[in-house]
Amino acid sequence: MRREFRSLSSPEEVHRALDSLSMTGVKELPLAQAHRRVLAERVTAPIDVPGFDRAAMDGYAVRARETFGASETEPKRFTVAGVVHAGEQPPAELATGEVLEIATGAVMPAATDAVVPVERTEESDATVRILSAVAPGDNVMARGTDIASGDRALGPGTRLGPRHIGLLAALGRESVPVQRQPRVGVISTGEELIQPEDPLESAAGQIYDVNSHAIGAAVRTAGGEPTIYETAGDEYKALTETLKQAAKETDLLLTSGSTSAGSTDLLYRLIEQEGEILLHGVAVKPGRPMLVGTIFDTPYVGLPGYPVSALTIFRVFVAPQLREASGTPEPPQSNVTASLASPVQYDGGRLRLLPVGLVESGDGSLVAYAPQKGSGATTTLVETDGIVRMAPEQNMLGPGTDVTVERFDPTSPIPSLLGVGEPDPVLWDVLDTVEHSRFLPLSRANADRWVADGIPDVTVRADERNQVDDSAETELATWQREWGLIVPDGNPQGLTDCTDLPRENVQLANLSTALSLRGAFDRLLDERGVDTDAIDGYHRALPGLESAARSVATDRATVGIGLVETATQLGLDTVPLGTQQVSVVSQSDRTEKPSVITLDERFADELTELVASREGFTE
Amino acid sequence: MRREFRSLSSPEEVHRALDSLSMTGVKELPLAQAHRRVLAERVTAPIDVPGFDRAAMDGYAVRARETFGASETEPKRFTVAGVVHAGEQPPAELATGEVLEIATGAVMPAATDAVVPVERTEESDATVRILSAVAPGDNVMARGTDIASGDRALGPGTRLGPRHIGLLAALGRESVPVQRQPRVGVISTGEELIQPEDPLESAAGQIYDVNSHAIGAAVRTAGGEPTIYETAGDEYKALTETLKQAAKETDLLLTSGSTSAGSTDLLYRLIEQEGEILLHGVAVKPGRPMLVGTIFDTPYVGLPGYPVSALTIFRVFVAPQLREASGTPEPPQSNVTASLASPVQYDGGRLRLLPVGLVESGDGSLVAYAPQKGSGATTTLVETDGIVRMAPEQNMLGPGTDVTVERFDPTSPIPSLLGVGEPDPVLWDVLDTVEHSRFLPLSRANADRWVADGIPDVTVRADERNQVDDSAETELATWQREWGLIVPDGNPQGLTDCTDLPRENVQLANLSTALSLRGAFDRLLDERGVDTDAIDGYHRALPGLESAARSVATDRATVGIGLVETATQLGLDTVPLGTQQVSVVSQSDRTEKPSVITLDERFADELTELVASREGFTE
Repeated sequence: MRREFRSLSSPEEVHRALDSLSMTGVKELPLAQAHRRVLAERVTAPIDVPGFDRAAMDGYAVRARETFGASETEPKRFTVAGVVHAGEQPPAELATGEVLEIATGAVMPAATDAVVPVERTEESDATVRILSAVAPGDNVMARGTDIASGDRALGPGTRLGPRHIGLLAALGRESVPVQRQPRVGVISTGEELIQPEDPLESAAGQIYDVNSHAIGAAVRTAGGEPTIYETAGDEYKALTETLKQAAKETDLLLTSGSTSAGSTDLLYRLIEQEGEILLHGVAVKPGRPMLVGTIFDTPYVGLPGYPVSALTIFRVFVAPQLREASGTPEPPQSNVTASLASPVQYDGGRLRLLPVGLVESGDGSLVAYAPQKGSGATTTLVETDGIVRMAPEQNMLGPGTDVTVERFDPTSPIPSLLGVGEPDPVLWDVLDTVEHSRFLPLSRANADRWVADGIPDVTVRADERNQVDDSAETELATWQREWGLIVPDGNPQGLTDCTDLPRENVQLANLSTALSLRGAFDRLLDERGVDTDAIDGYHRALPGLESAARSVATDRATVGIGLVETATQLGLDTVPLGTQQVSVVSQSDRTEKPSVITLDERFADELTELVASREGFTE
Repeated sequence: MRREFRSLSSPEEVHRALDSLSMTGVKELPLAQAHRRVLAERVTAPIDVPGFDRAAMDGYAVRARETFGASETEPKRFTVAGVVHAGEQPPAELATGEVLEIATGAVMPAATDAVVPVERTEESDATVRILSAVAPGDNVMARGTDIASGDRALGPGTRLGPRHIGLLAALGRESVPVQRQPRVGVISTGEELIQPEDPLESAAGQIYDVNSHAIGAAVRTAGGEPTIYETAGDEYKALTETLKQAAKETDLLLTSGSTSAGSTDLLYRLIEQEGEILLHGVAVKPGRPMLVGTIFDTPYVGLPGYPVSALTIFRVFVAPQLREASGTPEPPQSNVTASLASPVQYDGGRLRLLPVGLVESGDGSLVAYAPQKGSGATTTLVETDGIVRMAPEQNMLGPGTDVTVERFDPTSPIPSLLGVGEPDPVLWDVLDTVEHSRFLPLSRANADRWVADGIPDVTVRADERNQVDDSAETELATWQREWGLIVPDGNPQGLTDCTDLPRENVQLANLSTALSLRGAFDRLLDERGVDTDAIDGYHRALPGLESAARSVATDRATVGIGLVETATQLGLDTVPLGTQQVSVVSQSDRTEKPSVITLDERFADELTELVASREGFTE
């Protein structure tokens, strides 16, 4: 049933195969929609601009020769025969000794050939004294001298910014031929996928469809026009119909589905019958299930199922094709150099595209770090900033190696602040006020490892007495938080202490050992001599700070471990058991980093109020 | 009638005044439209992701403890009790000695706690041999370990890229609160303005409205949502009505109009009566007529009338406000350093925003040059790449000064090739094939001056015998073009030579002395002893290579000077008078520049064919 791909194609073969699939075309667009698009043909000026000899200053239209000899000491006096405003036809005749007041942009009367600026005149009643001579053509923009009819105005390949739109408007263009944005059909496959508007049945393994939305946005970023098709299940006939429809309406089909070999098999079979396979399997990680070919005569690329992998493969192989076809430039500063924080091992043989996060170190250089959760996690999407390529012949990158990071989105800033450690509601509030901050919840042990590798700017710890290692750390803020047993409103089981937990019908929602709050709970159980094996649910640990409380709120447990504040927020009761001290410390080489200074200031400004507004928090 | 602004505000006062005008807001957008927008509030995970313990590999779901001891030499045999696919509810029960085949993404059966990857198994019939022991939790992603319900998922201020959209989709979000794009009303004022769909009456001084379109596009680039209102004339009541309507519908009003003091006066009066003036007149050039205030309780900025000036003032003062309000980042590499090619003099006293073009010199450094035509020309819009700020106390920037150029659009490339000199149809064809090339038609004298200043990569000359200065130039290509008198089809006046031009009823359309073609014509007239003053129209010179021919085509003259090829294109006849030699030369320090090499190759590949396809052209 499972197909093994024996001959993997090289990345170069993928690029070549995709190059062979044409997605270009030309489309005439109204000027208002042509902004940021790429001109497909040369634009020749169809008219002279300006279309008439035009006054370039406010002043008086004159026959230049009549002004010869005028000066401040010997001004020449003229009769003002009238006014010419912009947008009106000037008088055809003008007697000797007469001038016309004229506004910038107005048509030069036929009898005149220069403008004397108003600053060089003195008006009184219907006469004007001219204080300077002018030469023919002075302060006049002659017809067609901006651009003349027949001149080459813009070349093909010009990306139309506001300035080009301005010139095209000046030429009277209502529409222009631009490179067409490739229409891209985006189809997620997998029986388990549902859309946000659908009710989620987790017990049946349902998950929200991530790839359609993420890939759709990525297509747009690369200059394509995405159409998201209804998520196709794993049924052959339905998938065929969806792809047939999409092939009719688009220039490129992208599927991504569950990473299981079975799903890949289905698409493999479909493409064998309804299209042509150019490549199946690419020597890239991630990307083994990647397929390239045509389906119903439309170019087709099958992406991996994990969102991180799908977007990575899209970015490396598909986005350049869309950029090329639509004329969308890669933003500048897409590549940055960073020092790798921790060693990366790899079995080699395939090009590896390693997603990494970035942080600015104390000396301003960049540090790259591998994400904590891997490509199966959707949070990895937003906790990484780019990819590092590891060549097939490499199997190890040592710590401190300089690597080139291809940034996912150079227009989005590299995180200003990287915090790791224990999550906390007050911390979250303060982080919300530091622009572009990133916080990764990590266990104490993992956080320490990250600190040893020189990654985070700040670390958050809870319930450790002697928290600050003076030599390497500076404490920015500290506060207390009360925690306990979270029980339904009214405490129906009448629990009074953790010693009550081994009772019948008491079902505990416990927390992961990655949380310091769990450590505090375990120390208390130990002090009280509670047999943890006697507690129903003790070994079923939940990952988030609020997970246990939310289990109680949704009746999945009768008691949980959590903060008093969380219980209050969820309308639950608490049996208080203790208080933890939370500390935020800065690594000493990062205390001068602007974002760390900002964080420090925010704590100084806001901690008292934030702590006061939250149940069970004290300074 | 004309108002003089006596106290000019400083640029800092403009920024402060604009800072005081609030344009921010929050808007809930469907996920598909939220891409590239900025999150206005924190997003907390409303669900666990994954919502169930999830198989992370294809393989067999097992009770880990039953696999203890299994190895390649001593595999353990299990009965395969069934299959669990992604998206289906697993069986609740599993007997000892049984396992379930499981696909990546499927729900872990309650009785199991680990997955043995398929690669570590051997299947035969309904049994499977397991070759490795696994520990509890191996190859399983536990519920909520990607992100747990209650965790902080994304902070406010996050600019939503494809990856953030992916995470939001994973959380089941149908819509998100984002910073609202300021709605910006764009109004051009001036009786002379018409829209592209209108017929152009040049004799009445009409011009196409440039600013509405260019500023509209610039507003979009800065993250605003433009609404272009009907161009308002200079009539007080109509303008008031337009602004009243726009004020109701938008967050910011931008007007730009004719640069005449009269038009500024009108707006000044309107804002005095219907709003509040914060600033009138700014110590910036361009920008004297700039107004800042409120009209009908809506923030208002009055921009200068010249498109180059309007966009410059918009970019420096208004765009940052829109970027801030909408959360749109300035693209990276907005500022570059360049060496100024020619001296810039200035009377000082005001901040000057000098538009400049950019070109890469032979050593890879950038050279900045002032545009040829000034801010009154719309072609200056596309012939410049950014602005240089000259401080009020400066009145001169010498050649070679290092200046910072604020690029208009860092996502558009700096021109790859800069050519100057005589325009030519074959040249235009070849330039169309060199991406991002720029060509500025310049007279021989101006072109020589630009070369002396080290600006252009290549120069195009016509009709010069000894064209190449061997020490400093390399000839890339040369060809011949035939020119003559352009007459209506059938040559109704029966002209045979330039000696016929002084005849009655013969009206000449002559060319500008900036064109070498005009030089050839003048030399011929001189040789033949023709009295140029006797030629009707001789002194009325037209600017473009095709201008004179087009005058004949539109019956504005009975004979013109032009290329045989132009006459053919326009369906006119020619009386041939001579042949010019056109030469394209590269400055010797630019011959190794990639774009010059490309140009050289294109000439080598295409010149023969291009010359053959055009009337009167020979190699």
